[in-house]
Amino acid sequence: MAKLQADGYRPLDETALNDVLATIPALVDRLGGNPDAWSVESLSGGNLNRIFAVAGPAGSVCTKQALPYMRLLGPDAPMPLDRIVFEQRTRQEHARFAPDRVPEVHHFDPVLRLVVMEHLSGHRELRHALIGNQPLPRVAADLGEYIADVLFHTSALTLSAAECRRFAATMADNTGMYKFLEDLSFTEPYMDHPRNTWNAPYLDGTVEAFHTDAALKVAVGRLKRRFMGAGEALLHGDLHTGSVLVTDDDTRMIDFELSLYGPMGCDLGTLFARTFMNFFGQDGLSDHRRAGQQWTLGFVAEVWQRFTSRCTQLRVTRRGGDAYPADWFGNDDAASRAALDDLLKSILADALGFTGTEMVRRIIGLAQVDDLEQIADPALRARCERRALHFACQLILGAATFENIAAVCRAAEKLRSDQ
Amino acid sequence: MAKLQADGYRPLDETALNDVLATIPALVDRLGGNPDAWSVESLSGGNLNRIFAVAGPAGSVCTKQALPYMRLLGPDAPMPLDRIVFEQRTRQEHARFAPDRVPEVHHFDPVLRLVVMEHLSGHRELRHALIGNQPLPRVAADLGEYIADVLFHTSALTLSAAECRRFAATMADNTGMYKFLEDLSFTEPYMDHPRNTWNAPYLDGTVEAFHTDAALKVAVGRLKRRFMGAGEALLHGDLHTGSVLVTDDDTRMIDFELSLYGPMGCDLGTLFARTFMNFFGQDGLSDHRRAGQQWTLGFVAEVWQRFTSRCTQLRVTRRGGDAYPADWFGNDDAASRAALDDLLKSILADALGFTGTEMVRRIIGLAQVDDLEQIADPALRARCERRALHFACQLILGAATFENIAAVCRAAEKLRSDQ
Repeated sequence: MAKLQADGYRPLDETALNDVLATIPALVDRLGGNPDAWSVESLSGGNLNRIFAVAGPAGSVCTKQALPYMRLLGPDAPMPLDRIVFEQRTRQEHARFAPDRVPEVHHFDPVLRLVVMEHLSGHRELRHALIGNQPLPRVAADLGEYIADVLFHTSALTLSAAECRRFAATMADNTGMYKFLEDLSFTEPYMDHPRNTWNAPYLDGTVEAFHTDAALKVAVGRLKRRFMGAGEALLHGDLHTGSVLVTDDDTRMIDFELSLYGPMGCDLGTLFARTFMNFFGQDGLSDHRRAGQQWTLGFVAEVWQRFTSRCTQLRVTRRGGDAYPADWFGNDDAASRAALDDLLKSILADALGFTGTEMVRRIIGLAQVDDLEQIADPALRARCERRALHFACQLILGAATFENIAAVCRAAEKLRSDQ
Repeated sequence: MAKLQADGYRPLDETALNDVLATIPALVDRLGGNPDAWSVESLSGGNLNRIFAVAGPAGSVCTKQALPYMRLLGPDAPMPLDRIVFEQRTRQEHARFAPDRVPEVHHFDPVLRLVVMEHLSGHRELRHALIGNQPLPRVAADLGEYIADVLFHTSALTLSAAECRRFAATMADNTGMYKFLEDLSFTEPYMDHPRNTWNAPYLDGTVEAFHTDAALKVAVGRLKRRFMGAGEALLHGDLHTGSVLVTDDDTRMIDFELSLYGPMGCDLGTLFARTFMNFFGQDGLSDHRRAGQQWTLGFVAEVWQRFTSRCTQLRVTRRGGDAYPADWFGNDDAASRAALDDLLKSILADALGFTGTEMVRRIIGLAQVDDLEQIADPALRARCERRALHFACQLILGAATFENIAAVCRAAEKLRSDQ
């Protein structure tokens, strides 16, 4: 039987969830009919939560409840329940600036740590679309613009420094989640650690080299310090291709529990990392997918291009923030543009560094990705993984040396054909 | 008559202050005798507060009370009273790690915004020692080690990322003070602004050029974003040579009201700025002080050297922080040292950038410094100021290009002899 926590939290099974939803008039209206006849279906996805689809004659909803431990690792890996409170806060904030990019929330219960939201039953995860080699017409544009909208409106580009500092303060207590990510992303892959997993024995030598590479640790340490200390914008925090739900016509972000007030390049980095892993992984598939790889590189370039052009567009009309005060450049639009270009350059450098660390983590740390794991021949998989790791190290060590996103994509192409 | 504020605050004149102190047994003991016979003497110093020395037969104390406006600008320039609460918090925290470097606090009244502390009557401000060309044997060592002790113990070098984020959150509401500094340091000198003052008409052309220099604004904007967004360590926040009280044997920091959880290089930058302004200013004195200039450059080099060697020493014994976890480098001391060197390099780059912005602010923005203002001949003063501004721009634009502190001092020497 589910244990009742001191503050009223209890994990809900199908029946208990049905009972809770039946007490909420707005949901009774939305689902329709007799609550006893609703269907409650467990959905997979995510490692940290219980997810259900609940359907009645008039409609359906998706429910997400935080569990006090990590589903992937079990009750011995406790996770803070209040992550869902931070998730809700960030989703609400992002919905203000990119309302079409997040699911609509119908109900939030901070005691049960339960969110009831729009059921996006026709959508699939972007990672499955990439693995399935299914090009999507608008996802790159949607993602680039979403990231730009959110960065602009939650940073000192639009806000006062005081507002930014208070924003950061309200997110400071999601530390249990940050610690989890900091350990997984910036610490464990570079040392001998029991949570690390990799394609053994093929990558054993590579993994060993990562544990003793001083220059790499110095560069990763720098990125870790940026991740921990740079309070610049309210980020999704875990924007990999499994946190993006897509159709041909729509793009939505889910799973904001790792959201933080952090460095602007972080979300782009996580997204690019999974995309490049897909790029290198496609060489390991039996039906070698050259067109898919081209689409993947084009996706990265287009996300960046849409991001920068949206920032440029916003910069013209949004000048209230303390970063560059409204009248600071007077009529000198070239100077204003130069300042934005300088910022975009530093965002790209950060993004590429975080791309590198996320790729390393997913190949030799905890939580592998389908894009590479699905390659049936482990030796072939290892060849793809080594290329991906080599590329990741180029990014970590040389993030600031790439002239633009095209040079990054060329470097990936070159590695693929050289090795 | 002093107006009583809603929360009980009222500015205290000599009589009212005497009455308040007479109600505090520990202070009655400390000062001795009959409170009616205590002497209360107004001390100058600072632009933001009322400072008194109160003496009785057994001893004396120094009192500091926040005023709701800036003394320098008058009641039309409101300043947040609670700055003294943040000051007290930071002074306490710094006293934990550098107990000999801050005055002892005898009493703190958060309603009256009044702090009663040790009266350092034998000390003088470091700026007066520098202007008076009086070398001090240990101030550089004391300052370098103080800055290192504080940075180490209040950052992720020693703390968890969670502790750092909470630290930053507790300082977030001192924003009125930060805004003041951000405007003065990073915004106003680079635009036409009524608060700017300079050595007119001699610097008119120079000032005009600063207002339209796009490259400079881009670089200053980058430093401003670091100042606003980088939460790395609990800084003094205003460590200029007037915030350091010295004797031949002692060094103490005062005036923590601008303290913030900010970028590690910030305090070093403020200190270096005032020192270099003194360096360039000494050429304008009638008894041209070459030995003083040499001492000044030696001071900068020694502060940095003591700072780095203290950090290196602390790094050996303090390995608990999340920045570089204890077991991350295993027995590879060279890698651990390389990570620290990388951090020190980035601190130097930040420090030099902030040195540049502080110099610019003090020459063409609000609040000039004696080191240059005291030069009687305005044309000669302008020559010194132009050199200082030229040097400041070199630092702002090329902070990351200086190999080490010796190269910085050589650049200052070169500018002095070239122009």
